[in-house]
Amino acid sequence: MGGPVQEALEALELVDHHCHGVVTADLTREGFENLITEGAAWPGISPFDSPVGVAIRRHCAPLLDLPRHAPPDEYLSRRAELGPREVHRRFLTAARTSTFCVDTGYAPERLTTPAELAGTAGGTAYEVVRLEGVAEAVAAKGVEPDDYGDAFQAAALDAVQRPGVVAVKSVAAYRTGFDLDPARPSVAEVTEAARHWSARGGRLDDPVLVRHLLWTAVDLGLPLQLHTGFGDNDIRLHRVDPARLTDWLHLTTGTIPVLLLHCWPYQRQAAYLAAVFEHVYLDVGLTLHHVGPARARAVLEEAMEITPFRKLLYSSDAYGVAEFYCLGALAFRRGLAGLLQDRVDADELGLPDALRFAEWAGAHNASRVYGLSGPS
Amino acid sequence: MGGPVQEALEALELVDHHCHGVVTADLTREGFENLITEGAAWPGISPFDSPVGVAIRRHCAPLLDLPRHAPPDEYLSRRAELGPREVHRRFLTAARTSTFCVDTGYAPERLTTPAELAGTAGGTAYEVVRLEGVAEAVAAKGVEPDDYGDAFQAAALDAVQRPGVVAVKSVAAYRTGFDLDPARPSVAEVTEAARHWSARGGRLDDPVLVRHLLWTAVDLGLPLQLHTGFGDNDIRLHRVDPARLTDWLHLTTGTIPVLLLHCWPYQRQAAYLAAVFEHVYLDVGLTLHHVGPARARAVLEEAMEITPFRKLLYSSDAYGVAEFYCLGALAFRRGLAGLLQDRVDADELGLPDALRFAEWAGAHNASRVYGLSGPS
Amino acid sequence: MGGPVQEALEALELVDHHCHGVVTADLTREGFENLITEGAAWPGISPFDSPVGVAIRRHCAPLLDLPRHAPPDEYLSRRAELGPREVHRRFLTAARTSTFCVDTGYAPERLTTPAELAGTAGGTAYEVVRLEGVAEAVAAKGVEPDDYGDAFQAAALDAVQRPGVVAVKSVAAYRTGFDLDPARPSVAEVTEAARHWSARGGRLDDPVLVRHLLWTAVDLGLPLQLHTGFGDNDIRLHRVDPARLTDWLHLTTGTIPVLLLHCWPYQRQAAYLAAVFEHVYLDVGLTLHHVGPARARAVLEEAMEITPFRKLLYSSDAYGVAEFYCLGALAFRRGLAGLLQDRVDADELGLPDALRFAEWAGAHNASRVYGLSGPS
Repeated sequence: MGGPVQEALEALELVDHHCHGVVTADLTREGFENLITEGAAWPGISPFDSPVGVAIRRHCAPLLDLPRHAPPDEYLSRRAELGPREVHRRFLTAARTSTFCVDTGYAPERLTTPAELAGTAGGTAYEVVRLEGVAEAVAAKGVEPDDYGDAFQAAALDAVQRPGVVAVKSVAAYRTGFDLDPARPSVAEVTEAARHWSARGGRLDDPVLVRHLLWTAVDLGLPLQLHTGFGDNDIRLHRVDPARLTDWLHLTTGTIPVLLLHCWPYQRQAAYLAAVFEHVYLDVGLTLHHVGPARARAVLEEAMEITPFRKLLYSSDAYGVAEFYCLGALAFRRGLAGLLQDRVDADELGLPDALRFAEWAGAHNASRVYGLSGPS
Repeated sequence: MGGPVQEALEALELVDHHCHGVVTADLTREGFENLITEGAAWPGISPFDSPVGVAIRRHCAPLLDLPRHAPPDEYLSRRAELGPREVHRRFLTAARTSTFCVDTGYAPERLTTPAELAGTAGGTAYEVVRLEGVAEAVAAKGVEPDDYGDAFQAAALDAVQRPGVVAVKSVAAYRTGFDLDPARPSVAEVTEAARHWSARGGRLDDPVLVRHLLWTAVDLGLPLQLHTGFGDNDIRLHRVDPARLTDWLHLTTGTIPVLLLHCWPYQRQAAYLAAVFEHVYLDVGLTLHHVGPARARAVLEEAMEITPFRKLLYSSDAYGVAEFYCLGALAFRRGLAGLLQDRVDADELGLPDALRFAEWAGAHNASRVYGLSGPS
Repeated sequence: MGGPVQEALEALELVDHHCHGVVTADLTREGFENLITEGAAWPGISPFDSPVGVAIRRHCAPLLDLPRHAPPDEYLSRRAELGPREVHRRFLTAARTSTFCVDTGYAPERLTTPAELAGTAGGTAYEVVRLEGVAEAVAAKGVEPDDYGDAFQAAALDAVQRPGVVAVKSVAAYRTGFDLDPARPSVAEVTEAARHWSARGGRLDDPVLVRHLLWTAVDLGLPLQLHTGFGDNDIRLHRVDPARLTDWLHLTTGTIPVLLLHCWPYQRQAAYLAAVFEHVYLDVGLTLHHVGPARARAVLEEAMEITPFRKLLYSSDAYGVAEFYCLGALAFRRGLAGLLQDRVDADELGLPDALRFAEWAGAHNASRVYGLSGPS
């Protein structure tokens, strides 16, 4: 674990191109356990007894001055003792991440803001606008079905013109999956769908309106982050294989960058899309902390089998608990460094190339896609 | 191969939560070859020349007093010489399995009974009732379409009230795949479907009746074993991805445990379901002996990437030949021990946790789900 | 890297059962880059900065008298200096491939002919007839819709009766994907579809005519190569999972050998089909050079998890640049040898078996399936 690729990635300040804020309140054991799993804390089945729980006890406990593999109770007790701000500070410092692109559109609880995140980390935070949230806010204010299309587009434009916004995001994966008609819907179709939605209420999950949202993203001209693959049980996993986006990717070629998030277990399908469409990029995001350092490399190996090295980005997808900024960064650095260093050691890859690819994936590709300051 | 996790798993008496009996008659070469493959013995393409055949010659030959990698002819000759009972005894002894849950619903030939299996192994055998068999027996006796629903439910209830029954099983994967309407069918729908089935005859493969069967399982209240993924060529592999069960799993949340069997090549999809649904569990069953010890660990690594350690079970899915009780157990023990021990050695996992997870997967999780005696 | 399996595979003259010719003209940088990717040379994203580009610089540069990992500019400059014939000669010599089955049906540019390929390599070249090309030539000549079925069949029969033709190929994957009605279409259906095609023009992508083409392949009686999985962005990856061919494979059991090409990321699904259908074979073809030697073994491990050793073949799928004959052969030899040798070293596989399986996959299985001269 001491080769030059490892050293370079240890020294590299990462760009975390997709994350969220963390809960600012004190957490109960159940509250914490519910935040570290895409499932829940079930009777007799603690999320601590899963790969992510093992990784937290191993890698996060020492940052709270506890021994490696500290028991959950000790971990949570020490965590409570230090308090949210100090815990947050320690994990963000350990993450060595200079730049965060923060999805601010999902906050059932009070979360840290991008500015708070940047302040704690001593870095820079940009904002990612979740378009479903914009659409639902428009609907919540009350809008005539005839006006919905224009009103949503105007609201989205307003939202992305706020300072610091660098991208938009869609959770179409959760709402309809990707078996959508790829074409831009007509005005009449949008009005009709808005009429039904208005009558029915609830979250935006009408296929026509989801398509309209995706095409609105194209019109906005900013990079679009798309949740794909793994998530909570609101996902239908077989319908969020990013390969199902192929027809839409044909139609959007030459427009905005499309960033496939998470992807697991379809990381090879995502790699295929990144290899054959100029505007497609990927990360393994959420997967990193859930599989933990023990398997992050294996997932990255698959994700990188055919992916151009300009197309892989880093994200932690941290949400709720600050541990994940740190665990994601750790799993990514070790996984990528191990993979590249071994290829260098086997003389399958030149060291200067390995160092270049490591910097690209860890920071420069994100700077390039989002137009951030710093090398790209 | 001498770490404490290996030692613990070598010493642990396994619970094999899903297996079958073995053929009691003498087997010809063709008969044996047909039993060790999900394909068949084809001209010029012997099942011995496949990963499972290699594993048998390597790991089972020494138990018949032959050298490792003994040629097929010698293997079969010695096997015949010893006779089925002695062969059965040797492989079951080597399996070090204390408890068997035996699917008794598929027996085109005379197979050992659960009691015979338990007797030979010096262990305990429970029974798993295959619901398609119950339904087909009801139909075979003759039943009015109006009465089919009630008659099947009554027969199923009778079947599971027999002593030693701990679970039910469905092979819906073979009959319709999982692209089913997840809702419980109405009485009228069941009657109408039963009318068609009655007119048509044959095995139960009507989608309405398969749904009715799955919901009958829910009513019975016992754990439900579901074949998913890999099987013989009667499967349509892309239709038995367990992710396609998601809508049904939402509707059945809070009811019975659902055990996804085999899963390959969808072990990651199965892991996702086990991670996000409280009532979902998985094994890699049949896969273990088909890929053999050379690849069992790799498959387990994927199956366990995000699976809570309370959710993985062991099964051999042995059918027909006694070799598979032994090969499954060997592949599982080595694969799991290698995976856990390496994590302990890399200090990614604490030894007490590794030992706990090994016991859970090898025995306790099954005891817990099925309410068997012994630690859970 | 010096065990007896490696030595045997190094010494074995491979049979490359699926490849193409290479461009005979000089190539610009952009021309070369476009040929080494299934995507394209995009601004700021060079195909050299991808796994295949890394593999070329590592393994092909020394064959042009350059240091390992030579920069792209030096590589292309030296390549131009040597000229196409010398470059072709060097890479073919390094491939140590005695026999080529050449798909001659895709040649938007002037490519080397099978005879030229054989001459340069000092080996033998056979031809594979791409049936879509035959059908489109029939249509281009003008044919009444009523006559299309017969005319295509006659033309296909003519084409395969040319000397040296050993197989046919279909790119149905690119035209419709595999969600086809598996049944042979009626004459009336073919006529009706031919009428529409005739009115519409363009390439053959009518589902009825694609089915007719596949059934014509069955009638011809030669082995059928089927593109599955990975390709350029004209593929819809989720629709070319070979498992979707299952119904058609049931109907064609007992007829012609069906060879699944490439397969990635569905190599496990392809392995399943090869394990349960007598007439199904697979390779990982195109995948070998795209993932490069760094990952070829990992892909082969998955492809071989349950595949009978009689069912795996080698192909380079080289197209356009001669580097790929060499890279494919190198990745295959190293990947397979590493996999088998490690199993021998772990005493999981006997050495004589490993040597036999290596010869089968590298050469004999292809000789057997296509009826080529040499051991089978």
